[in-house]
Amino acid sequence: MIINDNFFMKLAIDEAWKYQLLTYPNPAVGCVVVKNGEILSIEAHKEAGMPHAEVNALKTAYLKKHPNDVIKTKRKSEDIHEYLIKNHNGFFNDCEIFVTLEPCNHIGKTPACANLLKELKPKRVIIAHDDTNKIASGGCETLKEANIDVSLGCMKKEAYELLFPFIKWSENTFVFYKMAQTLNGSIDGKISSNQALAYVHTLRDKIDLMVIGGNTVRTDKPTLDARYIAGRAPNVMIYSKNKIFDTNIPLFKIPNREVIISDDLFRLLDYKFVMIEGTYNLLDTLKERIDYLVLLVSPKIRKGENALNEIDMDFEIVHENFIGQEKIIYLKRKS
Amino acid sequence: MIINDNFFMKLAIDEAWKYQLLTYPNPAVGCVVVKNGEILSIEAHKEAGMPHAEVNALKTAYLKKHPNDVIKTKRKSEDIHEYLIKNHNGFFNDCEIFVTLEPCNHIGKTPACANLLKELKPKRVIIAHDDTNKIASGGCETLKEANIDVSLGCMKKEAYELLFPFIKWSENTFVFYKMAQTLNGSIDGKISSNQALAYVHTLRDKIDLMVIGGNTVRTDKPTLDARYIAGRAPNVMIYSKNKIFDTNIPLFKIPNREVIISDDLFRLLDYKFVMIEGTYNLLDTLKERIDYLVLLVSPKIRKGENALNEIDMDFEIVHENFIGQEKIIYLKRKS
Ligand SMILES: [Zn+2]
Ligand SMILES: [Zn+2]
Repeated sequence: MIINDNFFMKLAIDEAWKYQLLTYPNPAVGCVVVKNGEILSIEAHKEAGMPHAEVNALKTAYLKKHPNDVIKTKRKSEDIHEYLIKNHNGFFNDCEIFVTLEPCNHIGKTPACANLLKELKPKRVIIAHDDTNKIASGGCETLKEANIDVSLGCMKKEAYELLFPFIKWSENTFVFYKMAQTLNGSIDGKISSNQALAYVHTLRDKIDLMVIGGNTVRTDKPTLDARYIAGRAPNVMIYSKNKIFDTNIPLFKIPNREVIISDDLFRLLDYKFVMIEGTYNLLDTLKERIDYLVLLVSPKIRKGENALNEIDMDFEIVHENFIGQEKIIYLKRKS
Repeated sequence: MIINDNFFMKLAIDEAWKYQLLTYPNPAVGCVVVKNGEILSIEAHKEAGMPHAEVNALKTAYLKKHPNDVIKTKRKSEDIHEYLIKNHNGFFNDCEIFVTLEPCNHIGKTPACANLLKELKPKRVIIAHDDTNKIASGGCETLKEANIDVSLGCMKKEAYELLFPFIKWSENTFVFYKMAQTLNGSIDGKISSNQALAYVHTLRDKIDLMVIGGNTVRTDKPTLDARYIAGRAPNVMIYSKNKIFDTNIPLFKIPNREVIISDDLFRLLDYKFVMIEGTYNLLDTLKERIDYLVLLVSPKIRKGENALNEIDMDFEIVHENFIGQEKIIYLKRKS
């Protein structure tokens, strides 16, 4: 394996993917700090309101060489910014900073990363993808004006795939279809581990709208909340031509939840971040509307029904991870 | 992500997995060289008769800092050994060497790696798994006797999984079942890309015996050679109770190939490295005999038949990789 810019950027991209979709409405971003060839940190942005990837990576890098420094106690982005600007003492001057997205240039919930980097004066900043968000962009220019060596475009394709959900939900709507199955495509019974279910509940806590098929509601009588992580139960759209449901079904009992019963798919466009939970049958109906299929695969073979049908769809595997012993595969629909 | 011994060992393990099964009869081994925190090389043993992982990694590490050195022209293991022993000039004294398997201690097709490391005197050698092969073992002792700091057991579980096929084929027989399917488990028609097929042919070139079901032979009339890589066509066992086949089927026409027609699974034990190619139906029959399921997954959904059946099996995902746009998943049967 060749150890070059791509190698370090790939570490940043893979770290960011661990928090893909969970950073909504922010993009998933990763950052790696390398000092004289030594990797000091590999970090990511984890959740909206928390420090950006660069801030996490700069803090961890500084701590790696100053393990008992008081920066350890700093959690808030503005505190880390302020502390590093006062105390860096040239620490980053021989560092290369790999970041999957152009550092932000505006002061939002957290101070601008481009401004922080400008003060720390690293030897080089390597950026995979430019910022498509007009309000936050301009980071490259800010760095170049400070005479920092900036490279743009390293692993741009991979960084674009990482950024894709953000681009979609920023522009209009990002829709993903979540499904769980065994290796051989069986969807009968309980498929996923509790750890995988907790992940699904983490997603439910983030989304603007959850879509589910009417038949699933009638048969499974689900609650569709985020109880595994004590999270927020999402608003629900039941996709059904028949509008009559037994209101004793638990999902209707959640306080402050909006439930829509509709078969009008244009209603999805009123939301920015939509998750559909279902089986291959519902996928067949909605296949033209989805951006991603998020497939949880349990490493077992089981007798099952309904896994195979008339669907014909092609995907690109944009990433995958483990959730405990199970796989999560992020598949982008080819249109 | 924490950057510690496990981080570097994981890089070595992942690199080795790229050549898993292809190193037969040798084990898959990976090696990473780190100099003062900087990763200089990530290499693996690629094929029996070629340099061991340590030799590849030491050469690449040396080249990284001496890019035009004549070592570039050295391909044979003994030449690299000899060159490094003469010319290292203390280069490795501040290096840490991460290796997934205890360095070999005997002089086989290539000189012993433990002896080479003893001469190069790295600061530290970190070994994931001890050598289970009595002839080659003792590498740890050789290093310790030379006063080299040796750590044993970092990521031992992951290294054991990497070593598992080697342990099996060294002791008796390693049997893997290779299957290709779509995301939803369909096995109809041409599933795999040509790149994935080339990989399958690379495996066929390595194995001692290939097993295939009688129905597949009768229906598909396959050749079962390794033409995609101009490799050796393996010997074949047709698993069938009915022993009568049309000898015009291409697989019977390959010169110097042995073909057995049998339903006696004990015959597998006459071979060390056995691949079964088939569908879920044949898997049902052979499921108690297999160590691995090697599953090629094409990222598409297709109408299909025969994917689901009565099988009930559990696996551990021990590794996975991409072959171009497709997935290869190494599943170890849970018994
Ligand atoms: Zn920022
Ligand atoms: Zn060796």
